[in-house]
Amino acid sequence: MTKKPVPRQSVEEMFSAAAFIQDLGMRIAGHGEGWAESRLDVTSKHQQQHGFIHAGVQATMADHTAGIAATTMLDSSEAVLTHEFKINFLRPASGSALRCRSTVLKRGKTLIVCESEVFALDAAGGDKLVSKMMVTLSVVQAD
Amino acid sequence: MTKKPVPRQSVEEMFSAAAFIQDLGMRIAGHGEGWAESRLDVTSKHQQQHGFIHAGVQATMADHTAGIAATTMLDSSEAVLTHEFKINFLRPASGSALRCRSTVLKRGKTLIVCESEVFALDAAGGDKLVSKMMVTLSVVQAD
Amino acid sequence: MTKKPVPRQSVEEMFSAAAFIQDLGMRIAGHGEGWAESRLDVTSKHQQQHGFIHAGVQATMADHTAGIAATTMLDSSEAVLTHEFKINFLRPASGSALRCRSTVLKRGKTLIVCESEVFALDAAGGDKLVSKMMVTLSVVQAD
Amino acid sequence: MTKKPVPRQSVEEMFSAAAFIQDLGMRIAGHGEGWAESRLDVTSKHQQQHGFIHAGVQATMADHTAGIAATTMLDSSEAVLTHEFKINFLRPASGSALRCRSTVLKRGKTLIVCESEVFALDAAGGDKLVSKMMVTLSVVQAD
Repeated sequence: MTKKPVPRQSVEEMFSAAAFIQDLGMRIAGHGEGWAESRLDVTSKHQQQHGFIHAGVQATMADHTAGIAATTMLDSSEAVLTHEFKINFLRPASGSALRCRSTVLKRGKTLIVCESEVFALDAAGGDKLVSKMMVTLSVVQAD
Repeated sequence: MTKKPVPRQSVEEMFSAAAFIQDLGMRIAGHGEGWAESRLDVTSKHQQQHGFIHAGVQATMADHTAGIAATTMLDSSEAVLTHEFKINFLRPASGSALRCRSTVLKRGKTLIVCESEVFALDAAGGDKLVSKMMVTLSVVQAD
Repeated sequence: MTKKPVPRQSVEEMFSAAAFIQDLGMRIAGHGEGWAESRLDVTSKHQQQHGFIHAGVQATMADHTAGIAATTMLDSSEAVLTHEFKINFLRPASGSALRCRSTVLKRGKTLIVCESEVFALDAAGGDKLVSKMMVTLSVVQAD
Repeated sequence: MTKKPVPRQSVEEMFSAAAFIQDLGMRIAGHGEGWAESRLDVTSKHQQQHGFIHAGVQATMADHTAGIAATTMLDSSEAVLTHEFKINFLRPASGSALRCRSTVLKRGKTLIVCESEVFALDAAGGDKLVSKMMVTLSVVQAD
């Protein structure tokens, strides 16, 4: 799908080398074979016009955390690119932080399917499911 | 779905009052009844780990432009919130700018369905469809 | 969205009055507040051109079972219509029967979001997740 | 993804060899490189509990017609399997017939992305867009 060589990737590079993720302020919170977790401290820059956390912030977090979950199952010569995703926003999101958990549903040879859940954390430490995503990632051979 | 009052919105407020959209650098390029267009000058901060434009940037742009297209069909007492979307990434995106065009497919009483196409522009002025989204927005009564 | 009056519905009517579901051979296997299960004995008529169970059979089952799960949470004056769904096929489906479990993720005032999992059962009694769906249903007032 | 050999397929076999499509009553109405059209005469067996055409009927038609559109772009050693789809139902569907048009958005090496539009035809000969789907199909090597 691309002429640019895609370098192979590690879980750490999925964060340190992804400028948009650094800019957003998202960080990795844990990972293991077939899963990953991330966190984002919410600031005013993450808001949409009504003061809620923008759908795009949640989608970016859910997509990228799925990419990390998928990366935990790759061979050293492979990398992933997002092919498609679908996300449902279950309630308007607000709070001091977001937490995302992604799990691999199916590790195929050329496609990996994950799902991601995004939770909003309030000041009292409670959390609430605010959005849920299904993602398909393409496995590409790194050069 | 929420206790916070949602203020009614205008097309202009969809940009000026949405912090994440300002931070991303996206701007409105045109709108009319049932459609909207936007632009984004691509910088290094929009990249993922392989140097392509992050899926989350494209999704944010496609979602927010759909919100504007929907807003062109609202009564003055209404606002929209994204309920769900699905996006396919047709090829890895790179280039100097992104352009997005959103169109309303169906204006229901409580739901509006839009589709958005995101194009990557190269230095020579050519553009290429890089992603396509279907979005459902909920119409909410502003207080 | 429609001029035809939509009668209110019970869980039982979701089966007995839905001709396409009767024709398909799907039957209800259990339900409670916020969930439902269904079964389908697979015959040759459910196949696509390679002998696998058609994607459309799985989608119909996942959608309709979600409609039943949603119906368990309705008031007596309400009914549901499917607004949209998205389904991932995780592996080619074959076997003697399909089982579907649907769960309500969010019961909103006008929208209900469910997810459905479809399992293929083999002769030995084992089952395998073959597809997963997210569904949005609109709550409509019955006349 | 499967141990069963998948035979290569022609556009005609996509119909004649797909039992569920025969049973549904759907037929091919035209095809060319990158597109396909199909028709379905609506009967009472296609209905859901309120007398509308079942979402599963529309989804099956939109999915299978996309499979045909994709097949028009295959090499003789290839076949397609549906990986995922997402469909929005824009209005309750009724009428004497359904018409579906599918178009290939992207022909990749291992994935093909299509979109399908389903139209309901009334007695007076008018038609109305009732649902729209985006589909990803996997290209598999036939044995």
